[in-house]
Amino acid sequence: MKRREIVKVLGLGAAAAGLAACTEQKAPVADCKPVETPAAAPAKPETIEWKMVTTWPKNFPGLGTGANQLAELIGQMSGGRIKVKVYGAKELVGALEIFDAVSRGTAEMGHGAAYYWKGKTRAAQFFAAVPFGLTAQEMNSWLYHGGGMELWEEIYAEFGLVPGAAGNTGVQMGGWFNREINSVEDLKGLKMRIPGLGGEVLKRAGGTPVLLPGGEIFPSLQSGAIDATEWVGPYNDLAFGLHKAAKYYYYPGWHEPGTTLECFINKEAFEKLPEDLQIIVRNAVRVANQDMLADFTAKNNRALEQLVNEHGVELRQFPDEVLSQLKALSDEVVAEEAAKDPMTQKVFDSFVKFRDQATKWHAVSEQAYLNARSL
Amino acid sequence: MKRREIVKVLGLGAAAAGLAACTEQKAPVADCKPVETPAAAPAKPETIEWKMVTTWPKNFPGLGTGANQLAELIGQMSGGRIKVKVYGAKELVGALEIFDAVSRGTAEMGHGAAYYWKGKTRAAQFFAAVPFGLTAQEMNSWLYHGGGMELWEEIYAEFGLVPGAAGNTGVQMGGWFNREINSVEDLKGLKMRIPGLGGEVLKRAGGTPVLLPGGEIFPSLQSGAIDATEWVGPYNDLAFGLHKAAKYYYYPGWHEPGTTLECFINKEAFEKLPEDLQIIVRNAVRVANQDMLADFTAKNNRALEQLVNEHGVELRQFPDEVLSQLKALSDEVVAEEAAKDPMTQKVFDSFVKFRDQATKWHAVSEQAYLNARSL
Repeated sequence: MKRREIVKVLGLGAAAAGLAACTEQKAPVADCKPVETPAAAPAKPETIEWKMVTTWPKNFPGLGTGANQLAELIGQMSGGRIKVKVYGAKELVGALEIFDAVSRGTAEMGHGAAYYWKGKTRAAQFFAAVPFGLTAQEMNSWLYHGGGMELWEEIYAEFGLVPGAAGNTGVQMGGWFNREINSVEDLKGLKMRIPGLGGEVLKRAGGTPVLLPGGEIFPSLQSGAIDATEWVGPYNDLAFGLHKAAKYYYYPGWHEPGTTLECFINKEAFEKLPEDLQIIVRNAVRVANQDMLADFTAKNNRALEQLVNEHGVELRQFPDEVLSQLKALSDEVVAEEAAKDPMTQKVFDSFVKFRDQATKWHAVSEQAYLNARSL
Repeated sequence: MKRREIVKVLGLGAAAAGLAACTEQKAPVADCKPVETPAAAPAKPETIEWKMVTTWPKNFPGLGTGANQLAELIGQMSGGRIKVKVYGAKELVGALEIFDAVSRGTAEMGHGAAYYWKGKTRAAQFFAAVPFGLTAQEMNSWLYHGGGMELWEEIYAEFGLVPGAAGNTGVQMGGWFNREINSVEDLKGLKMRIPGLGGEVLKRAGGTPVLLPGGEIFPSLQSGAIDATEWVGPYNDLAFGLHKAAKYYYYPGWHEPGTTLECFINKEAFEKLPEDLQIIVRNAVRVANQDMLADFTAKNNRALEQLVNEHGVELRQFPDEVLSQLKALSDEVVAEEAAKDPMTQKVFDSFVKFRDQATKWHAVSEQAYLNARSL
């Protein structure tokens, strides 16, 4: 019920006006006490004002716009009781400072991807993307019905954060190359922008992984500072103009098969919300999670066709032998990473067990069907 | 804001008590006028009471429990302002009477699958399952970002209903058979429980489709009244005990590659809700949509392993040649069905255009990745 409706129903202009002063504070209204005022003033709905800091350039297609839509949805579902203002990278804090900023309460919400925080907690990587790991559908299933979410909450609670899956890119592309990849030998000596566990796998294959923020990828590829890069998929890669600096576009993105974006919330701020608003915020995040995947799924092929038909990009599939070898290396790298601390091992065990089940089920369902449809 | 909080904040026991009588009505509270009462009574939060009728047996795994969870979520997200009571099939109206019941306002919400209403509006079938159609991920993308939802709303508006996708089974299984299917010839003369467009395809292949509600499948298969059946997938099929009446379990479910469940709402009741509650209801449906798929994805393989390892079920893949021929027949049947009226043709055109795009994109993403992972 909106406050203006309360006023309308009860016909209590003066008493309502006494509340106006406290409704602009951040605390839930239930904490406010009415004060006497001599005259009626226009009543305003109570508003909790939150900041959302993000790792994306403001309004970046898919990722940044997904953050914007999440903020808007929280506002709408709460009937205006929470207002979330979104900040692009560097507007309030740097792209990779958002975890700390929300942890200490500088902002109430953050929007990023969990593998960025592996320096703080290694296990976080499993909640973003794992080479030869889970697809979007499998990831959601592990999180919501396979114990994944509970582990993620346990890990982020140590930082005073409440996590949530807030979007998914689906299977990404393998990346942009200026030479054909016909064997794992072709990866040797390759300087490629590829972050996280995927980068570790490239290193084990003899390449040199390079870390670069999104905005520096194109100039680095064009100048030859790097030989190859991955980013997201056609929709985002076209926006960066990567086709102007590399000829071959490889698939599938073995290193990021269903990258989960995240929204984390300052735990103290979250727990101060009344119960219904907590539920609204949690579920708005869930809606955003599904919606971003639907958005990418709708837009990627149109962008891919533009890349191939208008820009002459050469679309190439990694040879099976390359993929098999990368999978063997990935399994080694990920297991070794997990063994470095007990929490990461615990997450790895849950993740791998789920992946085995999901792989078997999808062999007779999604995979078998997609193959049948394209016979 | 909950009404007990309003009362607490304003300290207005008597005036509030005057509202108590009207808060138990179905109309939004904004329509109620305060009345004078001589004494204070315990205030109750305002509650809009809705009924949800379903096509499922009460609490049926996945489908019925999904309906229950949706009802619960609406209650929680609205802070108790809407209370939805769920009725199983036959409790208030019959399983296949729910569309009419909600259309005329006997209940405010219904939970089913759109292909049940093809007798009322042929185009509805495209919003449930189409042979060789869209997977769950693709279906959501078409609905939310490919124009599908707008078409669905247009069609249901004629019946005074607001539709929403409220769950997805993922790719279903191909069904239970007592003989091996080595060629399309083996489908000739087969009496199989298979509804909708899939049934029409079987008919064109020389089989006899039979329509049976879920509860009658097992006895019919056991008595030999039917030779074969499809239902959903391992999780639901195990619950029905279908392995006790058939030996071969075939995949993939070419006829239902991502069956969408639906929740429709009486349009007049929906539009009477204040804006924030409308948004809450719409988004609770979206959350339910994603959650059911995650639930099925998590549970199907465990059930499949039980079927194979404990019950000796023979898991079989349809031969490629059978699938190719069924696909050709499906394309004929679906196109002919679409040509029967302009609205169905309009939906078909949108659906097929989207499927072409999605098939191309998933060939380089989901499909290519799932194949790479299982090398």
